[in-house]
Amino acid sequence: MNVEIICVGTELLMGNTLNTNTHYLAGRCVALGLRMLYQGVVGDNPERLKKTFLESFERSDVVILTGGLGPTKDDLTKEIVSEALGLELVMHEESRKAIYDRFLKIGRDISTLTANNLKQAMVPVGCTVLKNPNGTAPGVLIEKDGKVVILLPGPPKELIPMFENSCVPYFKAKQEYVLSSIMLKMIGIGESRAAAVLDDLIETSKNPTIAPYAKDSEVHFRVTAKAATEEEAAGIIRPVADEIYNRLGEYIYTENEYENLEDVIVKMLKERSLTLAVAESCTGGLLAGRIVNVPGASDVLKAGYVTYSNEAKIASVGVSPVTLETFSAVSAETAAEMAEGAAKACGADIGISTTGYAGSYVGIPGTETGNDEETGLVYIGLYYNGKTITTKNHFGNERQSIRNRAVMNALDLIRKNVQ
Amino acid sequence: MNVEIICVGTELLMGNTLNTNTHYLAGRCVALGLRMLYQGVVGDNPERLKKTFLESFERSDVVILTGGLGPTKDDLTKEIVSEALGLELVMHEESRKAIYDRFLKIGRDISTLTANNLKQAMVPVGCTVLKNPNGTAPGVLIEKDGKVVILLPGPPKELIPMFENSCVPYFKAKQEYVLSSIMLKMIGIGESRAAAVLDDLIETSKNPTIAPYAKDSEVHFRVTAKAATEEEAAGIIRPVADEIYNRLGEYIYTENEYENLEDVIVKMLKERSLTLAVAESCTGGLLAGRIVNVPGASDVLKAGYVTYSNEAKIASVGVSPVTLETFSAVSAETAAEMAEGAAKACGADIGISTTGYAGSYVGIPGTETGNDEETGLVYIGLYYNGKTITTKNHFGNERQSIRNRAVMNALDLIRKNVQ
Repeated sequence: MNVEIICVGTELLMGNTLNTNTHYLAGRCVALGLRMLYQGVVGDNPERLKKTFLESFERSDVVILTGGLGPTKDDLTKEIVSEALGLELVMHEESRKAIYDRFLKIGRDISTLTANNLKQAMVPVGCTVLKNPNGTAPGVLIEKDGKVVILLPGPPKELIPMFENSCVPYFKAKQEYVLSSIMLKMIGIGESRAAAVLDDLIETSKNPTIAPYAKDSEVHFRVTAKAATEEEAAGIIRPVADEIYNRLGEYIYTENEYENLEDVIVKMLKERSLTLAVAESCTGGLLAGRIVNVPGASDVLKAGYVTYSNEAKIASVGVSPVTLETFSAVSAETAAEMAEGAAKACGADIGISTTGYAGSYVGIPGTETGNDEETGLVYIGLYYNGKTITTKNHFGNERQSIRNRAVMNALDLIRKNVQ
Repeated sequence: MNVEIICVGTELLMGNTLNTNTHYLAGRCVALGLRMLYQGVVGDNPERLKKTFLESFERSDVVILTGGLGPTKDDLTKEIVSEALGLELVMHEESRKAIYDRFLKIGRDISTLTANNLKQAMVPVGCTVLKNPNGTAPGVLIEKDGKVVILLPGPPKELIPMFENSCVPYFKAKQEYVLSSIMLKMIGIGESRAAAVLDDLIETSKNPTIAPYAKDSEVHFRVTAKAATEEEAAGIIRPVADEIYNRLGEYIYTENEYENLEDVIVKMLKERSLTLAVAESCTGGLLAGRIVNVPGASDVLKAGYVTYSNEAKIASVGVSPVTLETFSAVSAETAAEMAEGAAKACGADIGISTTGYAGSYVGIPGTETGNDEETGLVYIGLYYNGKTITTKNHFGNERQSIRNRAVMNALDLIRKNVQ
């Protein structure tokens, strides 16, 4: 089935809001075996919205629209789509009641409820209403002329649970086959090198298929099988996955789509009852922030030290002033002392450190400091089992990317060296 | 002039890459006074790309395409657009030379240079070539039938400088008037309340216009004037800006589009020669990370402590075990001791702390822990001038949003209380 996404909203069109909904929906649709043809964004303009919708409805099997389900007069998605499909809008009693209940729950006077609020409970006749436990606008699923039109609310915290809870089961039930995949996530190898090593597999493999995805400092390969059952699909995937492990196993840190490198590290350290201390200079808290993102990180992360200044390197994690003077703050020697010092300061088993030149932002007026020779140079230190190792890295010249790559590579250093 | 953006790339269509280019380009085009009509994404499919391009070219004055300028056989944007416009591709000598030079510079054997590499130096006859100092694919600007077509490379680090250096001056020179704006950024007030306070101004003001933009825990208003000169525009903006300051001045932290709250804080502390220490529990390094993002932050940030565990709260920043036991880790008392302890541990003038329940992620299977009563409860502590104050906050129920709002509100607490 072909699918298109149309996002409705002036805030997207004007570049005010980053369009994360399309990114999310596209990934999920592809994983469900739908064939993504187009993605579009239109503003709150009735004519252009209608024209865009009808074009999409004509050429594709599934059209997903997001946004424009709110209570204001600019929110017109439901009205326009219903009109375009010749469907009358009728009051959906359950949604009306949910809006009342929500008003009462947040302590608002029910008499302040306006016609605009109630407009959110109107739905095209004959549609399936998709519940929205996180907001007042219900979603809508319309089946017409053998095609499917889905209207979802714009806020991601409403859209994502609605799609997961209502649309994913809907599409799964429609399929005559099961589409199942694993995501082999690699760190420490570039996309082109990984793709070259797997080139023959990628070219010849039809079921499962192998598709590469490059992310900043990571490479992912999705291996997808089509089969009658989940078990059969898993059986089709396994030998190909094994072959990929044979060739690139050392770089693979998970095959679970929802697992990140920090999840793997926290899980690994937890299993081995090891604790971690972090000392950060150029990453300035981002590495600790990434680790804390993992539920249960408090069992593992003993303490973090942001030692951006030399003073803090000395005071918080005991780097020697002589080292700083002799080798500078950005040196293997300083990285080593930071890692060891962090571990010892809080009694953690492992210390990890970053120190480097994060450089300037690209394209933001007033922040470009030029690319000097040292920008992107980052040392990472690891202290474990009484030994300290360091790596010297060059992470390009864009500030955010340098810091992100430093974080990823620090995590990878733990993965590779803590057994 | 009407403008559309078409992004070309299977990685966008499949939801592999987040489309930040459209977000960036849309914001810049709007700031340049162009009228954004549509945004679209198509894959590397020649037919669909051609059809989409021709539709856009027909209905709009400016069409910006991104991506598909690379050296692989899937990179077809230039070829398709040239064909659609009836323009022959010719070798651009300077770009050819730049590709040779780049090969030599990165130490590659010039004999490995393929026809595909050289294809990047082919441009439609009569176009303006846009230099790409950050990559091998030059950009292209075509003027035809009174319309403008711009082809930009996909990687943001190539696209952004190219647009800033080549396209912005091009559009500015084309305009008969100057469009100038300021961005009044507010923190501590919700969008609907701010909009209600300014409602009459927003409705009646035609030059300058006032447009609201809501961001997570911030509200921005862009005030834009159209005039003959920059000076005249500034004169038109000022009285309206003054009136907004009159009504909402306490919430406004900058009117500079490129300045963030952390920039303002670092600048303010630097001017007053004050130093800062950060103790983070629920934000786990993100607050320090935000501050370190500001160039020159090392003059201000003395040290950061990630004290996610109770142990670290005691050891790193001297929270009393009795306080933790009596009031729990998430309490005003703990926040206060963290702030004071952080400042004292490193001898900083100011200590800022966060402690709270960051809750679960929305929509990611396996991470939803449900919304219990305490999710989103965050205490922020500020120690300054021998006094400690704390705030109690409820930041919703989505983990990333809670942590982001905690960071923003911690910065705002400094802004409001450090004089």
